[in-house]
Amino acid sequence: MSTLSLQPANPHRLSFPDWMFSVQDRLEATLAHCMPPSEAIPGRLHQAMRYATLNGGKRVRPLLVFAAGELTDAATEQLAIAACAVELIHSYSLVHDDLPCMDDDVLRRGRPTCHVEYDQATALLVGDSLQSLAFELLAREDFGDPRRQLEMLHLLARASGSCGMAGGQSIDLEAVGKRLNQPELELMHALKTGALIRAAVLLGGLCGKALTVAERVSLDRFAKRAGLLFQVVDDILDCTASTATLGKTAGKDAAAEKPTYVTLLGLDRARKFSADLREQAIETLVIFDVRARRLVELTDFITQRKF
Amino acid sequence: MSTLSLQPANPHRLSFPDWMFSVQDRLEATLAHCMPPSEAIPGRLHQAMRYATLNGGKRVRPLLVFAAGELTDAATEQLAIAACAVELIHSYSLVHDDLPCMDDDVLRRGRPTCHVEYDQATALLVGDSLQSLAFELLAREDFGDPRRQLEMLHLLARASGSCGMAGGQSIDLEAVGKRLNQPELELMHALKTGALIRAAVLLGGLCGKALTVAERVSLDRFAKRAGLLFQVVDDILDCTASTATLGKTAGKDAAAEKPTYVTLLGLDRARKFSADLREQAIETLVIFDVRARRLVELTDFITQRKF
Repeated sequence: MSTLSLQPANPHRLSFPDWMFSVQDRLEATLAHCMPPSEAIPGRLHQAMRYATLNGGKRVRPLLVFAAGELTDAATEQLAIAACAVELIHSYSLVHDDLPCMDDDVLRRGRPTCHVEYDQATALLVGDSLQSLAFELLAREDFGDPRRQLEMLHLLARASGSCGMAGGQSIDLEAVGKRLNQPELELMHALKTGALIRAAVLLGGLCGKALTVAERVSLDRFAKRAGLLFQVVDDILDCTASTATLGKTAGKDAAAEKPTYVTLLGLDRARKFSADLREQAIETLVIFDVRARRLVELTDFITQRKF
Repeated sequence: MSTLSLQPANPHRLSFPDWMFSVQDRLEATLAHCMPPSEAIPGRLHQAMRYATLNGGKRVRPLLVFAAGELTDAATEQLAIAACAVELIHSYSLVHDDLPCMDDDVLRRGRPTCHVEYDQATALLVGDSLQSLAFELLAREDFGDPRRQLEMLHLLARASGSCGMAGGQSIDLEAVGKRLNQPELELMHALKTGALIRAAVLLGGLCGKALTVAERVSLDRFAKRAGLLFQVVDDILDCTASTATLGKTAGKDAAAEKPTYVTLLGLDRARKFSADLREQAIETLVIFDVRARRLVELTDFITQRKF
């Protein structure tokens, strides 16, 4: 355990589960408010956007935005918008990844995927529109410092595109049936999952008071390790958890002959790797002292999650 | 003819065709420079992004950005980035619209569409990545006034999403085989084509010196009429020009039983409507006097184009 985790708790502070629920509630309310209502023309598209985004998921990326925002005493309103923007990008990627021409999946968050519930054309437009909405929200909100806001927009756009999440998905498609070595697998995941998780952490850190250069460097190191950790745990769960627990099709990476940390390292070594990554991630937070408590708790949650 | 068109030409000024070619060249060079090189990992995705974006199109939206930029004496570098951002959004929409689950088209700009040349999954990621890149570029460039830059980002994002271009495409999908009246058809096109054309004009007007409120109102009126004009001419061309001339499949709206201005009004009245729209669009530019010359010329080009 990190020394940070051993410090006495502030009695006025929410427990981690209560904090998590409060962030999830806040995120849900902000998302529901930010998206056009189902009645707004075109109704079918707006209904499908809401279907794909609301009522679902652990909201790990929004939790990371809020936890990082505690480092800078950021205002909840700003964190909620930044968290929504990241989650909209994540939601769009799930809708597109599930399409028949990609992963062809029918189950997501325990419900039919968007193209199954609606149709492929609508799902395509849902993803496209959710991506636009992410940038619309981030550009519209007043974050106080417009130059820092432009930096946030740039960071999120770069993390989403061909040198980030979409690029990782492209490498993933090309890797099916191939045997990647660990550096290749890490590059794929650094883009596919890591880039957006890193963006979530950094966006939270860009709200509120400015961090020092040293703090930004440390936060970026944490963000990269947290992204990798999340993926390793995801790979472990894909081969150990059930479809019912995950709310999405389990074992599909193995079935699709996709390289994972489990196929590369075996289950035991993958678990050891995730424990090491957790330690390394938490070490980078020492510079923030008690301000990093939520990030430490969240790192533990990411490591120990069962779904 | 508008009175503006009758004013004597400045002998140091490029002719309209020369100006158009110079903007198209500049846009091509900036796009080529802004997109990741084909060698950059993931290579297949980056090659496909370049395939879908370079060497093609009339670049009407970039021309509108540059023409509107003459109202504000905007710097060419800034206009080029704004024009790239708009064109990347347009290019992404073409790639996604051509997919089998949407319009299922095989020909674009005289070449196989992106999913035919590559594959559907790659084309999906190309569109997604081009959209991200548009916002990345617009957030990265220094436009001098960061608040105005945030306004540009907001405008482009809103024009792209479910209350703009993607929303128009959704209405279009739902309208197949239906008989729309003129207000319904205008709403569809105001979103599907008009929103991005309007954004192109306003983005150009947001670069450079600030416009007065009255000028912004006039420019917005022009932008909306230009968008509608573009679509009416597009509908006329779809039923009068050949596939070879258009570089895309001709007559496909009629074949798909899509409502168009020609099916609604008949060819003669659609032509009359386009002439009226041209007049109305140019009238709104009087406030700008000679600064609007390029916009007037471009409006004439849009009206008279044969492809």
